[in-house]
Amino acid sequence: MAGKAVAAAVMVNGSVAEKEVLAEIGGATNPMVTPLLTDLYQFTMAYAYWKAGKHQDRAVFDLYFRKNPFGGEYAVFAGLEECIRFVANFKLEEEEISFLRSIMPMCEDGFFDYLREVDCSNVEVYAVPEGSVVFPKVPLMRVEGPVSIVQLLETPFVNLVNYASLVTTNAARHRLVAGKSKTLLEFGLRRAQGPDGGMSASKYCYIGGFDATSNVAAGKLFGIPLRGTHSHAFVSSFMSPDEILDRALLSHDGSSTCKDFVRLVQSWLSKLQVMKSGIPNFCAVALALNDLGYKARGIRLDSGDLAYLSFEARNIFHAIEKEFNVAGFGKMTVTASNDLNEETLDALNKQGHEVDAFGIGTNLVTCYAQPALGCVFKLVEINNQPRIKLSEDVTKVSIPCKKRIFRLYGREGYALVDIMTGENEPPPTVGERILCRHPFSESKRAYVVPQHVEELLKCYWLGNSSKRREELPSLEKIRARCMQQLEQMRPDHMRRLNPTPYKVSVSGKLYDFIHFLWLSEAPVGELQ
Amino acid sequence: MAGKAVAAAVMVNGSVAEKEVLAEIGGATNPMVTPLLTDLYQFTMAYAYWKAGKHQDRAVFDLYFRKNPFGGEYAVFAGLEECIRFVANFKLEEEEISFLRSIMPMCEDGFFDYLREVDCSNVEVYAVPEGSVVFPKVPLMRVEGPVSIVQLLETPFVNLVNYASLVTTNAARHRLVAGKSKTLLEFGLRRAQGPDGGMSASKYCYIGGFDATSNVAAGKLFGIPLRGTHSHAFVSSFMSPDEILDRALLSHDGSSTCKDFVRLVQSWLSKLQVMKSGIPNFCAVALALNDLGYKARGIRLDSGDLAYLSFEARNIFHAIEKEFNVAGFGKMTVTASNDLNEETLDALNKQGHEVDAFGIGTNLVTCYAQPALGCVFKLVEINNQPRIKLSEDVTKVSIPCKKRIFRLYGREGYALVDIMTGENEPPPTVGERILCRHPFSESKRAYVVPQHVEELLKCYWLGNSSKRREELPSLEKIRARCMQQLEQMRPDHMRRLNPTPYKVSVSGKLYDFIHFLWLSEAPVGELQ
Repeated sequence: MAGKAVAAAVMVNGSVAEKEVLAEIGGATNPMVTPLLTDLYQFTMAYAYWKAGKHQDRAVFDLYFRKNPFGGEYAVFAGLEECIRFVANFKLEEEEISFLRSIMPMCEDGFFDYLREVDCSNVEVYAVPEGSVVFPKVPLMRVEGPVSIVQLLETPFVNLVNYASLVTTNAARHRLVAGKSKTLLEFGLRRAQGPDGGMSASKYCYIGGFDATSNVAAGKLFGIPLRGTHSHAFVSSFMSPDEILDRALLSHDGSSTCKDFVRLVQSWLSKLQVMKSGIPNFCAVALALNDLGYKARGIRLDSGDLAYLSFEARNIFHAIEKEFNVAGFGKMTVTASNDLNEETLDALNKQGHEVDAFGIGTNLVTCYAQPALGCVFKLVEINNQPRIKLSEDVTKVSIPCKKRIFRLYGREGYALVDIMTGENEPPPTVGERILCRHPFSESKRAYVVPQHVEELLKCYWLGNSSKRREELPSLEKIRARCMQQLEQMRPDHMRRLNPTPYKVSVSGKLYDFIHFLWLSEAPVGELQ
Repeated sequence: MAGKAVAAAVMVNGSVAEKEVLAEIGGATNPMVTPLLTDLYQFTMAYAYWKAGKHQDRAVFDLYFRKNPFGGEYAVFAGLEECIRFVANFKLEEEEISFLRSIMPMCEDGFFDYLREVDCSNVEVYAVPEGSVVFPKVPLMRVEGPVSIVQLLETPFVNLVNYASLVTTNAARHRLVAGKSKTLLEFGLRRAQGPDGGMSASKYCYIGGFDATSNVAAGKLFGIPLRGTHSHAFVSSFMSPDEILDRALLSHDGSSTCKDFVRLVQSWLSKLQVMKSGIPNFCAVALALNDLGYKARGIRLDSGDLAYLSFEARNIFHAIEKEFNVAGFGKMTVTASNDLNEETLDALNKQGHEVDAFGIGTNLVTCYAQPALGCVFKLVEINNQPRIKLSEDVTKVSIPCKKRIFRLYGREGYALVDIMTGENEPPPTVGERILCRHPFSESKRAYVVPQHVEELLKCYWLGNSSKRREELPSLEKIRARCMQQLEQMRPDHMRRLNPTPYKVSVSGKLYDFIHFLWLSEAPVGELQ
C-alpha cells in the first residue's frame, strides 16, 4: 500500500496477555479506510480551491462537539490513533484517481495530477490525548495544512472520532455507575453497525472502562480480554444427559480420573433436590467439579428480577458452602444481563444486589440513549486570518483563531476550568491569577489561581518535519488515562442526576477578539 | 447564518447509476469479517458440543425479529448477501486457531484439529429475498447444519442483518414519507459507527430507496450515485473575489472564452441587488453560467425555516426566469438539510414546501428514533426433534420446527397474510381456502383464499451440494425489489400514524403442534 512516506514511529499495543504487538503507523487497522472515505463535496471543493489557486492556502480547522451526550456534563475523547493512522496512510491510489475522474468529468486533468501528489506531509495534527475527559466547544483536535487537503480529512476524522468518543463516554458512564469493584463485559457485537462497528464498539468500550468483550476478533486484534457464558440454544440442544458420550474427567491435579462425571453430577443433584430454586443443576455440576479439584466460574441471570434473583443465588451458594463445607462456594460469580443500561445499573444499586459482573450489549454499543455525538470541523483561520462562523443560535458560533488550550487544576487536584487562548498569548502559570471568561456571555467571568496547568493540545502529526511528536500510546495506556481522568474530575460534574456543568472559558484577550470579529461580522486583523 | 442559502453550483451527479455490481461469492467486501468475528461463547459451546460428541448433530436455527422498528408495522430485510459471502469464506486460518488455543488453553488438541477442518460445506441457508418487506416472528433466514458450526454463524449473521435491516427500513420510511418525486441524499458518513458503519449505511440506505450518497468510497465500491453540495468553510475561506486567480471560463459549447467570469458574475449581482434575500450571490453565478451555456444545479438550505425559505427561493427563481427570460431558471433544484428526519419531512409536507431534494445524515444512519433491531437466532429443531423456547413473555416464545413460509396475496394484488407451515405440509394453493391461525392466541383465526402464493424462504447456500441455489442479485435489483415490495403492501400497513398490523399466522397443524409442545413443556415427536 502506498503512503508510508512518513517515517515509522512505533505504536505499541499492549494486551492483558502481556503480548506486545508492534506496528508501524501505516499499518491501518481497517483496509476500508482510504482517502475516498469522505464526502463527495470535499473533492468538489478541492477542485474549486485548486481552480481558484487557493488549494495551498494554510488553513486551521478545529474539531469539537457542541453538547455533552447522555444528559451529562462531560465526554471522553477517543479515535485519535485511527485519525493519525489515516493521515500517515493518506495517498490516493491510481485506480482511485481514475474513479474520481469518472465521477468528476468536468474537472481539468491538472487537478488529477495534483491529487496524485497529495499526501499529509504538510499537515499538522494537534490533539487532546486519547482517553481524556473533554467538554463542549474545546477543540479535541486542531488540524493545520493546505486547505484542500485538510478539508478532505474532515469527514474521515469526524467519522473516526464521533462514534469512538460517544461509545467511550457511554462505557465510562456505565463504569461510573457500576462502581470500580464490578466486572463489566461488553456483549454488543450483534447489535453494532456491522462488523467494523462491532470492532470499534469493543475497542472503545474497553477504553471507557469495560473489562472484557465477547468479540473474539476484537480480542485478537486489540488484545482485549475475552469473556462469555453460553446461550439458551446450548441447553435446549440436549435432549438428555444420555447424549454426553465422553463421561470421563481427569481431576485437576491429574492424579485420578472420574469415569462417569455425569453420574457424579447426578448424585450431587439428588442431594440438592430439597432446594426450591432453578439453580441446583448448576450447583450440582459445580460441586462435582469441586470434587475433582476444579472451580466453577459462576452463573448468568438473563431475565427476571435480577436484584432478587442475585440474592437468592447468593443465599444458595452460601448455604452450600456451609452445608457441604466447600470453601469459597459462596463467592461464586453472579453475572447479569438482559437489556441493561445506566438506569438499570443505578436502580440495581439503589435496591441492593449480589451481582458481580454485568454483560451489556444493545444499549452500550448502539448508544441507545443518544446514538449520535455532533462533532463538527470548523475553519478557524486561513492564511493567518481568523475566521468565525456566526449563527443566531449562539451554541453554533465557532471560536475563531488558532488556539492553545489549558486545563487548570485546583488545590485538591481536581480540574477547575479549561481555558482557550490565542496562539501567542503567554500561557497560564501556576500560582498566578488568570481571568477566565465565558466565550460569549459578558457577565460570566472568574479569576482562577491554578495549582497545576496542563496544556491539552499536543502534537501527534507533524508531516515530514523531523521535530518531535507524541508517540501513540498503547490501548492499555489510553484506558488507564481515561480511568485516571475520570478520577481527576470533581464528582459533582460526573454524577448522573443534575451534574454541575464544568466551565469552559477563553482568555480576556481572546474574548475581546471574538467579540470584535462578531461585531464587525467580517474577519479583520489577527489575535496578538 | 440562519436563513442563508448556501450557493451550490457544484452539485455533481455520479455517472455510475446504471453500473451493476455483480456479486461474486467468495470476494468478501470486508476483510475484517473472519470466523473470529463472533462471540467467545460460540467457541466455548462448540468445544462443549465437541466434547459431548454432539458437534455434528443436525440443527435448524431461525433468524427473526420480534417487534417492528420505529413504531411501524413492517421492516425491510437486508444483509443477506453479506451473510452468504461470510459462509462462502468461512474457514479458520492457522494463526486464528493459534489465537483460539491461547485463549482456550483448557481445550484438548483434538478440538483445534476439528476447527481446522470446519467450513460451511454442510450448511444450508434459506432466506427471504433481500429487499423484501418482512414482519415479526417470521424467519428471515433458516440456517441448517452441524450445531457447532451453525452456532458459530449466529453472531456474525445477526450482526450483518440487524443494522442492515434497521437502516434499510429507516430509509424506506423516509422514502415513503418524502414521496416518489423527491430526491433523497444520504449524507451520514460522519455520524456512522466508524468507516464500515458508514459503508453499510450508504449501501442499505440506497436499497431502502435513497437516490445517492455523499460517501465516495461507497460510490466506488457499490456503484451508488454520488452527490454533494459544499460546506460553510468553503465560503468563509474566501476573503474576497480577488483571491480567484484563474478567471477565464470557456463556454459550454467551446466556442468562446469569457476572460473574466468573476466580473460577469459581479455585473449580474449588481442587477440583483434590489432583491431582499440571501441568494443573489447564487443567482448571479447561475446567470453568469447561463450566459456561457452552463446550467447551475441549485441551492442548499441548511438552516432556518425550510418550508418558508424554499418558497422564497422558488419565487426568486421564477422572478428571475421572467425578468431575464431564462427558461427553466424557476425549476432550479432546492436541496434542504439540517437534522432532517421522518417527522420533519412529514411536517414539511403538511405545511407545503418547494424542496426538491433532501440531504439526511444523523437521524438516518444512526437510526436515532430506534438505534437497534432485536434480531434473534433460535434453535427450532435438532436431529429432527423440534425445539421451543418458552418464556412468561409470550413475545419471546419461539416457533418450533423447520418451517416453510408463504405470503398470500389477495385480489387487488396486496399481500394479505404470511403463513408458516411445517416442512412437509401441503403448501397453500391459489384459489383454495386455507386456515390461518395466530401462533399463540386461540381465538385469532381466519380463512383466506389466496389469489397468488409466494414462497418466501429460498435457498441461497447449499454447502457443497450441486443442487441449484438462488443467485445473489445486484444491488440495483435488491433496491428494485424493495421499491416494488413497498408498493405491494396495503397502504394502511405502511402509514406513519396508527398503521394496521399485518397478520402473521401459522397453519392449523403447526398451531396444534406448538401448543402440544408448549403444554408438554418438553419436546416430543415431530410435526408430520
